Amino acid sequence: MDEPLHPDVAELGFLIGTWRGRGTGVYPTIEPFTYEEEITIRPASGKPFLVYEQRTRRPATGEPLHAEVGYFRAVGGPTVELVVAQPTGIAEVHTGTVRDATVHLRSVEVARTPTAKEVTSVERTLVVEDATLRYELHMGAVGQPHQLHLKAVLHRA
Amino acid sequence: MDEPLHPDVAELGFLIGTWRGRGTGVYPTIEPFTYEEEITIRPASGKPFLVYEQRTRRPATGEPLHAEVGYFRAVGGPTVELVVAQPTGIAEVHTGTVRDATVHLRSVEVARTPTAKEVTSVERTLVVEDATLRYELHMGAVGQPHQLHLKAVLHRA
Repeated sequence: MDEPLHPDVAELGFLIGTWRGRGTGVYPTIEPFTYEEEITIRPASGKPFLVYEQRTRRPATGEPLHAEVGYFRAVGGPTVELVVAQPTGIAEVHTGTVRDATVHLRSVEVARTPTAKEVTSVERTLVVEDATLRYELHMGAVGQPHQLHLKAVLHRA
Repeated sequence: MDEPLHPDVAELGFLIGTWRGRGTGVYPTIEPFTYEEEITIRPASGKPFLVYEQRTRRPATGEPLHAEVGYFRAVGGPTVELVVAQPTGIAEVHTGTVRDATVHLRSVEVARTPTAKEVTSVERTLVVEDATLRYELHMGAVGQPHQLHLKAVLHRA
């Protein structure tokens, strides 16, 4: 937290921190699952974006599951953008809004390497209240309609 | 380097490390510039990818310039994929090959947030020889044809 905060990202400041918690995943094509998660969101040398890093583990074994990295961009007023890279070969590019400590983002494009799974739409909602971050991720993928995939509750570490 | 290396990424092992050096940027729409750069490429808990982080600074002042994060994916044989997120609102998804300590990647898709610059094609070549990493980045952007944009020489830290 030593890095100065760019004035444009002040509205996203409530996201900054290290967050730990648990989530659940569902989708018609898979068995439901639970995961442990750590999210870090931090400013970047006075630039108008926040750096985002995430990883999840299997609760019983600690085995790494998903990971992603990217940037939250403040682009003026309540408009927010998100760029995310995933080791599964997928990159998401979102646009959305921030209001009342709630960020709502919808994918503009989901880019895929030739070997990646077919993901066609992603929608992410993050809400911070006191020291708790809750998010939901909806996804359209592998021929299935856009629907709830992930839901998690994390606490500021 | 405590993390075990997934056998599929063994062929990319020559990229692993922290690399520091200098580069030059050119493009018809901008003044030529130089930059200092640090690249870190590291394994990820035995998973079949490498984590990639990069940032550049203005040599005279140390002011942060570009940054990007992403993943090199080993997907079988000499085939390599790269997923990169940039705080400029751009995500690149590449496919390519690794051969003789040379990785050659071409963008399959370049995804952009609504406020990002128009980047249409990116090509990245990385060559490691002894403790030196050289790369070139070609780019088609803002109406200009695909051409050399960045060239850098870095040394293993």
